[in-house]
Amino acid sequence: MKTDSWILKGMICYSKTKDELAVLENGYLICCQGILQGVYPVIPEEFRTLPLTDYGDALIFPGMADLHLHAPQYPFCGLGMDLELLEWLETHTFPEESRYQSLDYAEQAYTIFTEDLACSPTTRAVIFGTIHTPATKLLMDKLDATNLKTYVGKVNMDQNCPDCLRESDAVSALEDTKNWLLDTMDAYKNTKPILTPRFVPTCSTDLMEGLGALQKQYRLPVQSHLSENPSEVDWVRQLHPWSSCYGDVYDHFGLFGAKSGTNCPAIMAHCVYSSKEEIQRLKQNSVYIAHCPQSNTNLSSGIAPIRRYLEQGLLVGLGTDLAGGANLSMFRCITDAVAVSKLYWRLVDSSAKPLTMEEGFYLATIGGGSFFGKIGSFEKGYEADVLIADDSMIPRSSSWGIRERLTRFLYLSGEKGKLIGKYVAGVKIF
Amino acid sequence: MKTDSWILKGMICYSKTKDELAVLENGYLICCQGILQGVYPVIPEEFRTLPLTDYGDALIFPGMADLHLHAPQYPFCGLGMDLELLEWLETHTFPEESRYQSLDYAEQAYTIFTEDLACSPTTRAVIFGTIHTPATKLLMDKLDATNLKTYVGKVNMDQNCPDCLRESDAVSALEDTKNWLLDTMDAYKNTKPILTPRFVPTCSTDLMEGLGALQKQYRLPVQSHLSENPSEVDWVRQLHPWSSCYGDVYDHFGLFGAKSGTNCPAIMAHCVYSSKEEIQRLKQNSVYIAHCPQSNTNLSSGIAPIRRYLEQGLLVGLGTDLAGGANLSMFRCITDAVAVSKLYWRLVDSSAKPLTMEEGFYLATIGGGSFFGKIGSFEKGYEADVLIADDSMIPRSSSWGIRERLTRFLYLSGEKGKLIGKYVAGVKIF
Repeated sequence: MKTDSWILKGMICYSKTKDELAVLENGYLICCQGILQGVYPVIPEEFRTLPLTDYGDALIFPGMADLHLHAPQYPFCGLGMDLELLEWLETHTFPEESRYQSLDYAEQAYTIFTEDLACSPTTRAVIFGTIHTPATKLLMDKLDATNLKTYVGKVNMDQNCPDCLRESDAVSALEDTKNWLLDTMDAYKNTKPILTPRFVPTCSTDLMEGLGALQKQYRLPVQSHLSENPSEVDWVRQLHPWSSCYGDVYDHFGLFGAKSGTNCPAIMAHCVYSSKEEIQRLKQNSVYIAHCPQSNTNLSSGIAPIRRYLEQGLLVGLGTDLAGGANLSMFRCITDAVAVSKLYWRLVDSSAKPLTMEEGFYLATIGGGSFFGKIGSFEKGYEADVLIADDSMIPRSSSWGIRERLTRFLYLSGEKGKLIGKYVAGVKIF
Repeated sequence: MKTDSWILKGMICYSKTKDELAVLENGYLICCQGILQGVYPVIPEEFRTLPLTDYGDALIFPGMADLHLHAPQYPFCGLGMDLELLEWLETHTFPEESRYQSLDYAEQAYTIFTEDLACSPTTRAVIFGTIHTPATKLLMDKLDATNLKTYVGKVNMDQNCPDCLRESDAVSALEDTKNWLLDTMDAYKNTKPILTPRFVPTCSTDLMEGLGALQKQYRLPVQSHLSENPSEVDWVRQLHPWSSCYGDVYDHFGLFGAKSGTNCPAIMAHCVYSSKEEIQRLKQNSVYIAHCPQSNTNLSSGIAPIRRYLEQGLLVGLGTDLAGGANLSMFRCITDAVAVSKLYWRLVDSSAKPLTMEEGFYLATIGGGSFFGKIGSFEKGYEADVLIADDSMIPRSSSWGIRERLTRFLYLSGEKGKLIGKYVAGVKIF
């Protein structure tokens, strides 16, 4: 019997739609060869021989997809959260990222990062590395070994950044990137490369063109930053006066999702200040928006209009954006998404209804999970990404159901909750 | 030798001013009979006989004052954080508070609350109970036994609230309150009563007048809510059209701090929408503002202009406002205060500089601590409220000092930090 075929029993919940949480007490979640067969009140005859783990009163819900985080920034998360973006970059981010030139340093730092990510609620992640190919390969080695499913980007930047973090020129940057792609594209079971121009201002036209060509040649997904703060948006307009919006620059070079010539997706982090034109382009190109509520708060960026994006049917997931966000936990990310949506309603646009808990949970599971395929639900046919949560230390009223328990767990997991199990694509992580 | 005379050794930090953190590695913090004698690199001769606890590499910093929280709401914290204020009150708050009519229920719920508060970073707290005198006395019994220093209010409200939570009339409400005061005023070592009109709309003129008279007679401190959200401010204006501002109503009845006829302080939670007139009155009367950043976010209230209050020399501390805030941790409260100040800068007033980590830490220690006396610093003469934090699970760079370690601990304590010691007025809690 395959180890990724099994039955879990417990207090099951998952998003049916973004507005509806499906719950089943003492339900059975059935997985065959990594693919879920659905949730049942009684085990159907044909699955009776599968090994069963009874998690008793514990909560069982889908794994979380973190659509945007910077692995090399993990060592200083929580530092400099009272600085402004530029100070923070200069004081913490750039000096730290330059350390990954040293493989010894990378070994030490990425060991901690991958261990912590493996223990976290995240089952899938889309991750920035640094410009350093050896360190990025090391990160991929380590991530692959966790059995989490991840995309990792060697970062590209050849202008408008400190010397210690600048690729010397577009030609060598592209050659490095191509070699890295060839080395990693088929090297791993769980980890894939993703093209990663840091953001428009740090990439020369030659570099962007070359990355677009690599995208086309290898049909790769792309990740970058988009419309995070007003001065960045202005800067991009100055750098590329021909562009109709910031996203248009990525699109022009074939780095902006479906319409870029392939059906490979792109993820753009933030989208706090996307114009009407840009929103339309995000939709047309089926670009994923990685909403990073804590980072947008900590770095004084603002609040992304997620209600509007959902109303317009855009693809939205959540991101911790370590270390702009200080916390690795996607549970915290959900509660932050709900929280900032309430301030958005109060301070920016009183016609934008705040997000519900159901919507936040949906965004963290199916919303971001769909970037990876059929991920984030417990419906039949989804890959088996599962979390098991012990909330027995969180007191509860007898009148509460699974929904209330899940909600309290999301808010209080840092204090009193505990993840006791995690599966990715059917494989048990712990 | 008295048990509240001792020396602690470790990595010491505390606020010297709101802009300056004092740090001393391997320092000695000396306490005689509950009063700090200061921080020293070497133990002065006269203290050599005091018992010493060596906390090694652990961080040692002042205890935190939580200026505003609702004990009866603790059982449902984290629930309904996606509701709007009125829905939240009706769905969770009012039904829960009405349960404290039952002493059995109160026993169960307040046991959990006091145990958790004792383990939290809070050494001093100003707490709302319910309208129920027996349950409030029970809460005070339990709090007193923790050795934390607390003020507790039996809540007054006789109008504009559900029947199950309304005192039947002003006369009986005032009689109950007076009896409760006489019973509790001198009954405890660590716990004191505080007058607690819930907020202006729920208190009749007769009730407010009577509370003002009790204040004058017994020279009691007062706590209430002020200018939390725009519709509440409008409502108060309609109820008391003669008033120059919301705070003027409390002041009129002698429930608004120093100018109310005694030098007993008042605490007003929130102050998100205080007018110029109200701000001046808060200052004149030396009223404490309990800034509750997470609650103001969760309940869609807005963001209080704390930078302005600090510039104008107002008295400001922090409050978790359980269960408008979901988390009991004052560490989280500090990071939330910094975070929302950044959104305030971005979304409301770009001339209001965001709070620094130093300022957030100051507000949680000295800012709120000063409501209780000389609390929140390690300077000579302060009462010995001390926390000891093990941050050994939070990886660190060798180049970081105590400031960086403290900052990371504040942000990451939910995930990887651990409080390993706590003293209040020299008494060891754990």
